[in-house]
Amino acid sequence: MCVKGENLSKVGRGFKPNLPVTAAVNPDGRAGGRGADAVAAVDPLESPQFFAGGSALTVPSIPATPIETDALIIGAGPAGLFQVFELGLLGIKSHIVDTLPHPGGQCAELYPDKPIYDIPALPVCGAQELVDRLMQQIAPMGPVFHFGEEVAELQRQDDGRFFIRTSAGSEFLARTVVVAAGLGSFQPRRLGVEGCDAFEDRQVHYRVRSAAEFHGKRLVIFGGGDSALDWVVDLTGKATSLVHVHRRPEFRAAPASVARMQQLVAEGRMSYVEGIAAGIRSEDGRLTGVTVKRTDGVLQDVPADHVLAFFGLHPKLGPIAEWGFELEKKAIKVDTAKFQTSVPGIFAIGDINTYPGKKKLILSGFHEAALAAFAIAEHLNPAKKVHLQYTTTSPIMQKRLGVTE
Amino acid sequence: MCVKGENLSKVGRGFKPNLPVTAAVNPDGRAGGRGADAVAAVDPLESPQFFAGGSALTVPSIPATPIETDALIIGAGPAGLFQVFELGLLGIKSHIVDTLPHPGGQCAELYPDKPIYDIPALPVCGAQELVDRLMQQIAPMGPVFHFGEEVAELQRQDDGRFFIRTSAGSEFLARTVVVAAGLGSFQPRRLGVEGCDAFEDRQVHYRVRSAAEFHGKRLVIFGGGDSALDWVVDLTGKATSLVHVHRRPEFRAAPASVARMQQLVAEGRMSYVEGIAAGIRSEDGRLTGVTVKRTDGVLQDVPADHVLAFFGLHPKLGPIAEWGFELEKKAIKVDTAKFQTSVPGIFAIGDINTYPGKKKLILSGFHEAALAAFAIAEHLNPAKKVHLQYTTTSPIMQKRLGVTE
Repeated sequence: MCVKGENLSKVGRGFKPNLPVTAAVNPDGRAGGRGADAVAAVDPLESPQFFAGGSALTVPSIPATPIETDALIIGAGPAGLFQVFELGLLGIKSHIVDTLPHPGGQCAELYPDKPIYDIPALPVCGAQELVDRLMQQIAPMGPVFHFGEEVAELQRQDDGRFFIRTSAGSEFLARTVVVAAGLGSFQPRRLGVEGCDAFEDRQVHYRVRSAAEFHGKRLVIFGGGDSALDWVVDLTGKATSLVHVHRRPEFRAAPASVARMQQLVAEGRMSYVEGIAAGIRSEDGRLTGVTVKRTDGVLQDVPADHVLAFFGLHPKLGPIAEWGFELEKKAIKVDTAKFQTSVPGIFAIGDINTYPGKKKLILSGFHEAALAAFAIAEHLNPAKKVHLQYTTTSPIMQKRLGVTE
Repeated sequence: MCVKGENLSKVGRGFKPNLPVTAAVNPDGRAGGRGADAVAAVDPLESPQFFAGGSALTVPSIPATPIETDALIIGAGPAGLFQVFELGLLGIKSHIVDTLPHPGGQCAELYPDKPIYDIPALPVCGAQELVDRLMQQIAPMGPVFHFGEEVAELQRQDDGRFFIRTSAGSEFLARTVVVAAGLGSFQPRRLGVEGCDAFEDRQVHYRVRSAAEFHGKRLVIFGGGDSALDWVVDLTGKATSLVHVHRRPEFRAAPASVARMQQLVAEGRMSYVEGIAAGIRSEDGRLTGVTVKRTDGVLQDVPADHVLAFFGLHPKLGPIAEWGFELEKKAIKVDTAKFQTSVPGIFAIGDINTYPGKKKLILSGFHEAALAAFAIAEHLNPAKKVHLQYTTTSPIMQKRLGVTE
């Protein structure tokens, strides 16, 4: 079982930090989403409350040798975060990897501002608030986060451990793995015109690794969210030419950015076309331009050295589908006692798993995390029976929670 | 399947309302528990916040004919309360019966003041606070509560419905039943001396139905909590003689009540003996007195017409064990897709159920309630497929929640 992932997301690594990547993926198409300021306001790494309980959440530099851990959690959505907590109650420390640059998974990425009403004992809770609450709850367990990294390789070792390598080169030797990957890793939505995949990362881009490579070049930038508009404004003047293409008159980007773009157009410093990508043009293996189908129906050829498209992110199962798990309708089959996959030592919780009766509820992910934690404790130490203790009464639980000495 | 329950609890019916019944059952033996004032402070029937959402929690008078309902929930602990919510999201109204005079089950009865740390997204939550939060959350679903009643009889009808009768005489015809009875119904702890059961409710009492029956009688009152002390103080002077017996110098009752009792002893109006019940004395089928083993080892005979013992409540499986469910270690076996018992149409959630991997966690009861709700919806309407909708996005869910029109 050793598969290299394709289409590895590198979102969040080398990403210009003041350009939010989330604004364009609001699922109902309404304006909104989380802007740069909102991201900063909830960033657990910036917020002192998450350092409560005497333990810090750390994003380590990548060590030369694999990180050895009892538990590696893939996915920092609600289920993955709560897995940290349930493992911590049983004395098990965990590392947690997520493709996004922040915790929260779908909650943070798809509907941060929306209220959730069916979390028990929280009559109404914003999706980002839920994430913040979970981050606060798990802080005493000292999780180590690896954000902006996708697990690209997962390989069982002879000693029963799992070797994991991420898109960013982090390596782990984990005694157990919990796949809490939700709908999969968040991937940029692609341009979707014939032939463009061949130019990806060379002349067709869904993120900016180094803005300098676009200086002095002819650019076409697609999209109507903050990422698109911010780069349009940023690169105008630095590029030889810049054409901004968006499919409709409405923008999800901040009105100020839209106004600035329109001002640059009025000044003749860039062009704006309302339309969609209809094709690419290439010559001798190099992309030479894109064909835009304008809203008025006219096909317009736009010469370009680079095409940048910012259509937001969407979740994709990705390499997980290829790790040898027994699947059913793109979900990983688990038992309902341990929430273990067909690979002993690898567990799956939350939206990514399936079993008879499964409902994709956040609540179910929480319950699955609790039961998986007990199974993981037994897997790590088969000789020792794990007794259920209650946080209300158990001194050892309360010590792990940091609420007693 | 028709069993009359034995030892039916009538706690909360006819109980003198200013005498709390909860103070004596703190599981760790520490002083505390919930006094009368605390009960009043959290009583949902008193608190206007529980009437939010346009629906009232009602305690109906007993109608002459059986109440017809789609779902009857037995037990108003956290799992039972959340079952109301999950059913309500699917448009199913429910009635809920509990032996206690208030919602919350073990949380409210055994450890109301204690913090719980493992409810997801609630880093710390008092047990009574959890109950209050759930009551607020379920209010829009308009549950009908029947407190202070134990389900005594449960019988399947030819039309597939279930006939239920409670200890208080309420009758139901329910299309589905959810047993969320936790550790069972809360029963008064008994005196536990040979032969005393034969006199229960005649000359040995664990609750006071009518204080007048003790006037002009010789009484012995056992216990050190608020119930015992309040009745000692209340009945002194009204009884011909009154002897108060408690096993140790420390009392859980309010210090003012203890001081009042000691003053009455000093005034020669009653007696106090430190010790425990060692036996009863009877003549011609009538109880004539109790033998008390004093702390100093001496056996003392105390003549009595009535013995009252207030040792608090403890949960007992009771009649549920006799309704024909497949059991395992006193828990009801369920499947993990529907959480249905061996009797189709009857479901079991929370601490009372068992399945491979089961942990008695409040969180698990919540998840089980969610999946049971879908199974109940299918049971009620087999022809209609129930689709999962999200409270975040579904207009119909939001209407049921009372958050949109």
